[in-house]
Amino acid sequence: MSETPKTATKAASLTPLLDRVTVPSDMRNLSNEQLRQLADELRAETINAVSVTGGHLGASLGVVELTVALHAVFDTPDDRIIWDVGHQAYPHKILTGRRDRIRTLRQPGGLSGFTRRSESEYDPFGAAHSSTSISAGLGMAVAQELRGATEPAYRDRHVVAVIGDGSISAGMAYEAMNNSSAPGAGRLIVILNDNEMSIAPPVGAMSAYLSRLMSSRKFLSLRDFAGRVARRLPPGMERTAKRVEEHARGFVTGGTLFEEMGFYYVGPIDGHNLDQLLPILRNLREAPGEADHRQPVLLHVITQKGRGYAPAEASGDKYHAVAKFNVVTGEQAKTPPGPPTYTKVFGDSLVDAARADDRIVAITAAMPSGTGLDKFAKTFPERFFDVGIAEQHAVTFAAGMATEGLKPFCAIYSTFLQRAYDQVVHDVVLQNLPVRFAIDRAGLVGADGATHAGSFDINYLACLPNIAVMAPADEGELVHAVATAAAHDSGPIAFRYPRGNGNGVALPATGEVWEIGRGRIVRARKPATEQSGVAILSLGTRLDEALKAAELLAARGLPVSVADARFAKPLDTALIDQLAREHSVVITVEEGAAGGFGAAVMHHLAHAGLLDHVKVRPLTLPDSFIDHNTPAAQLAAAGLTARDIAHAALSALGIDADAASAGADRALSTPVS
Amino acid sequence: MSETPKTATKAASLTPLLDRVTVPSDMRNLSNEQLRQLADELRAETINAVSVTGGHLGASLGVVELTVALHAVFDTPDDRIIWDVGHQAYPHKILTGRRDRIRTLRQPGGLSGFTRRSESEYDPFGAAHSSTSISAGLGMAVAQELRGATEPAYRDRHVVAVIGDGSISAGMAYEAMNNSSAPGAGRLIVILNDNEMSIAPPVGAMSAYLSRLMSSRKFLSLRDFAGRVARRLPPGMERTAKRVEEHARGFVTGGTLFEEMGFYYVGPIDGHNLDQLLPILRNLREAPGEADHRQPVLLHVITQKGRGYAPAEASGDKYHAVAKFNVVTGEQAKTPPGPPTYTKVFGDSLVDAARADDRIVAITAAMPSGTGLDKFAKTFPERFFDVGIAEQHAVTFAAGMATEGLKPFCAIYSTFLQRAYDQVVHDVVLQNLPVRFAIDRAGLVGADGATHAGSFDINYLACLPNIAVMAPADEGELVHAVATAAAHDSGPIAFRYPRGNGNGVALPATGEVWEIGRGRIVRARKPATEQSGVAILSLGTRLDEALKAAELLAARGLPVSVADARFAKPLDTALIDQLAREHSVVITVEEGAAGGFGAAVMHHLAHAGLLDHVKVRPLTLPDSFIDHNTPAAQLAAAGLTARDIAHAALSALGIDADAASAGADRALSTPVS
Repeated sequence: MSETPKTATKAASLTPLLDRVTVPSDMRNLSNEQLRQLADELRAETINAVSVTGGHLGASLGVVELTVALHAVFDTPDDRIIWDVGHQAYPHKILTGRRDRIRTLRQPGGLSGFTRRSESEYDPFGAAHSSTSISAGLGMAVAQELRGATEPAYRDRHVVAVIGDGSISAGMAYEAMNNSSAPGAGRLIVILNDNEMSIAPPVGAMSAYLSRLMSSRKFLSLRDFAGRVARRLPPGMERTAKRVEEHARGFVTGGTLFEEMGFYYVGPIDGHNLDQLLPILRNLREAPGEADHRQPVLLHVITQKGRGYAPAEASGDKYHAVAKFNVVTGEQAKTPPGPPTYTKVFGDSLVDAARADDRIVAITAAMPSGTGLDKFAKTFPERFFDVGIAEQHAVTFAAGMATEGLKPFCAIYSTFLQRAYDQVVHDVVLQNLPVRFAIDRAGLVGADGATHAGSFDINYLACLPNIAVMAPADEGELVHAVATAAAHDSGPIAFRYPRGNGNGVALPATGEVWEIGRGRIVRARKPATEQSGVAILSLGTRLDEALKAAELLAARGLPVSVADARFAKPLDTALIDQLAREHSVVITVEEGAAGGFGAAVMHHLAHAGLLDHVKVRPLTLPDSFIDHNTPAAQLAAAGLTARDIAHAALSALGIDADAASAGADRALSTPVS
Repeated sequence: MSETPKTATKAASLTPLLDRVTVPSDMRNLSNEQLRQLADELRAETINAVSVTGGHLGASLGVVELTVALHAVFDTPDDRIIWDVGHQAYPHKILTGRRDRIRTLRQPGGLSGFTRRSESEYDPFGAAHSSTSISAGLGMAVAQELRGATEPAYRDRHVVAVIGDGSISAGMAYEAMNNSSAPGAGRLIVILNDNEMSIAPPVGAMSAYLSRLMSSRKFLSLRDFAGRVARRLPPGMERTAKRVEEHARGFVTGGTLFEEMGFYYVGPIDGHNLDQLLPILRNLREAPGEADHRQPVLLHVITQKGRGYAPAEASGDKYHAVAKFNVVTGEQAKTPPGPPTYTKVFGDSLVDAARADDRIVAITAAMPSGTGLDKFAKTFPERFFDVGIAEQHAVTFAAGMATEGLKPFCAIYSTFLQRAYDQVVHDVVLQNLPVRFAIDRAGLVGADGATHAGSFDINYLACLPNIAVMAPADEGELVHAVATAAAHDSGPIAFRYPRGNGNGVALPATGEVWEIGRGRIVRARKPATEQSGVAILSLGTRLDEALKAAELLAARGLPVSVADARFAKPLDTALIDQLAREHSVVITVEEGAAGGFGAAVMHHLAHAGLLDHVKVRPLTLPDSFIDHNTPAAQLAAAGLTARDIAHAALSALGIDADAASAGADRALSTPVS
């Protein structure tokens, strides 16, 4: 026990400076030396907190010094700091009034794992998806400029957007930079947090001097930058002037792309060195002239993911996302053994399919391991394409490949595919091209919360002509869905599956190719001549809850059928008609927003004249965003548990559901014949 | 009559060379001189054809020489030519087997105004939305590379993507360029068709020589380009070497951004000069080495929109999109006088609202006149933001402005808003920010066809929490919708309206602010105690057809109510419940895909227990794409006319609709009391 680092509350003396900082204004009288100590304490506190909660540790450790420097120099919250993606904001949360709740990160009812406007006035823009910060920051800067014309409080405000080198590669960031001549853009400072280089940046006085020089107000015009650097060197340094000039040219070249986009480029500098960060940020903050006559700034900082925590620095992914861990050893809590994840089953199945068909190629937008395509990448490197954070391009790139006879599998999470919606519509579906969409993280996702919940893909896909949309009910079914998608070469097809582990069903040795638009009866009611009882028509992985609901209802003596739709589109109208004709109530179940599968079923039944003769109750996600929580709690909040399904059926039949529920609960513990 | 240029069919002698070219292979033995003549004939034919049909003339005239050069040099259709947007492809259509149908452009049953895979094997990728060509082309190049490993036919194929300087500013194009190291990318030649510069490019032998030199195989490495140019000048030109080197540096600088993206940059060259285009393209086509070791090429050509037709060259918009016109005078057919367009009513209303509220700002993604914001731009230039072809940025930029207390109106067409779907979800709706979305071109759009039809916005928006979605029924209602959006500051709100003219209703002097989620009864049935008759619940501009349908039904003696929902979300549940309780049949009508408004109505009624007691028939757009046609023909094809509505109601009531229809038609000509 004595080996375990103590928590902040028990041992205030380990973080004496941090204990005095509740909000950033408490930092602004600290010396540079004290700020360095504060950064060390903040790092220790971040490590300790995440060891308890798990989370995105590596990114947060990379920006500890930057976080301290930003809040020390800028007048937050009036000055705005936007963290792109927001998963690196744990140190920021600790410094901005949330230290007392930092050990609730990503826990039910606790702090979000991302920035969030509703959580703090120090979070001016929430995030979780990447590459939004420059657009948002530019909007704020322009708005401040407009309001500053009449409202003095807005006159000297700044906006800082911190964006990673991966995030800035997305088209959206480019679009924002391309708009950098908007009036007021001069209030914007983009900090490019470049942690791709694991090589340490140049250090020492010379480098620090150059960095200060580069950002001083004398050099806010870069045009003759190289010459000035040489001319303004202090006495005694002329001999190194040539070398300095070479360096300076190097810097200019490195920033040319940003210069051409209209930014004043500064850098690269060492993002862990407060002696560089503080004076540069102070200079940038106090840049002279009206904001509408300034260029926006791009400050290029080099940081190290996982910085300052040896196990993270030594780890291949720099502790990008970790489980709870032992601070001393770095050992992460083991995932309890269990069924494979849907992600893994998809990845394995696609490799199997690709062995049999050399036309199969795979595309990811910067998520090779998140999508399970890492195995494919190793097995078929020449048929694997990681296009970077570029979902729009990923989809149309796949469409181009499809026109040449390849069979592209485009694996993108449900929420991220929203980034490529027009490409799905305009480039794939309208042209009826056989692109396969593997849609992971469909439905609720647990600790990542609402920003990552795949709630809308059935809505935004099933409304489109031509496309087939599948939702396998378990990991065994997913194997078949992959095989079906591989075989379906006459048009686009998508399959959605959730985050997390499968049900533990036996995996089929080979995938079978489904007939397009054909579902299956999983549990059939006893034959009867009259319309009676309940049919549950489930789409996707709620099937196990549907079957449990059937048990609950059967225990009440009701005839119950359960069907697995397999396809949200095209509908199995024969199956649906049969269910509607034979049952008094049809409950549809899907882990998606209203307007998707259940709506399509009702639309069909209405026009078939069958809706008038059966009671349909579509169960969907509610019309609200569901906060991060355990998956089970989220599904309960969504009203998609077995009890909710049974409740809806009983209610439709006019049976007192609460009484019934109590009875059914008793019944459930009794074996049903 | 003798003054009017004759059509090709009547006067073959005016286009003797073009008459011999049915497909591009017919061009490949022509001399450069003959190709120049062919270009002249092609230009005349293009002007003549568009004078008959109307269409995108300016862009097509700018690429006449480029079109000739590409088809003369490349082995189309095996080599792929992708026209970004595709509206500049009229000359391409004439050269690729479609000359006999060129005067059916954009006409019912005729050629599409864009490229289209189903129309010709020479259209390898359809388009209409911008900035997709590099992604698609890269996908093709990569696929050719993979297939070329085992299939010799694919070994020497090339892909050419022609993209405008506006289109290349979109994030998607950047994402594609960023991916240019993919194996096989060396097969790709991106032609940047730069027509922003109206200044003529440098001409003459020296320029032509330099251009050839730049693209010759000797210079496929650009690193020491400037030096080599100076060294390799022919004898006698040493004196100008310095100037040449300056030029060369200029070229390098101009292309640095593309170089940094991994492209081999060539240019700029004169896109109307076949003496430059032909040798450069031949050199690029025959570049040595395996494609997987080459860089992709960016060839920068300068062209002039409207080139070669005096009225177009003299016009401010260079005849971007024209009505039918007189070839001699350039005079366009006048639009018959009529009610103002929805676009104009929106633009005027927003200016009125902005006069009263200085927090209102307006954002467009490169469509100031298309969205009707040009008046706002003139009236409030400092509150108007054209961000370029950058829908993703536009939306998050607006979200940033909303966080600072402004009231942004983001005006984007329905289909183009698909480009920013994730930004709507993640940056606006999840944060509940009061961004106003003005969604023009909702529903079917006539001659632009399926690529521009706004069929899905109700689906992809109304499934989201927090947002309000309005659809005004006529141009007077649109005035109120704008006022309502301006006043609604507690969360996001959208309003959709169609292309084209309003109904001619009187416009209100000022907009009234609607209660959020409240519809209105437009026609009330006679009071009755029992549930009977028909309620038509219309969303948006199908209301006039709904009222006509009511007349048809009333003529049959049926009690009929008509309501205007005004909101697709939130639903007016009190109104809907009342309609469901008082009528035997409820018909919902919307100009959008199934799964939108009607689905939401059914979802509500099902859970309210009312769906079991009323017959609902949701009328929507069909589950198919509707080709370009007259708006009336499209609506008939969609089944959204008054007769379709009446038919659905009668059918639900079990009345023989065809017999009823005949009777109703007679009735319609008789005044109804």
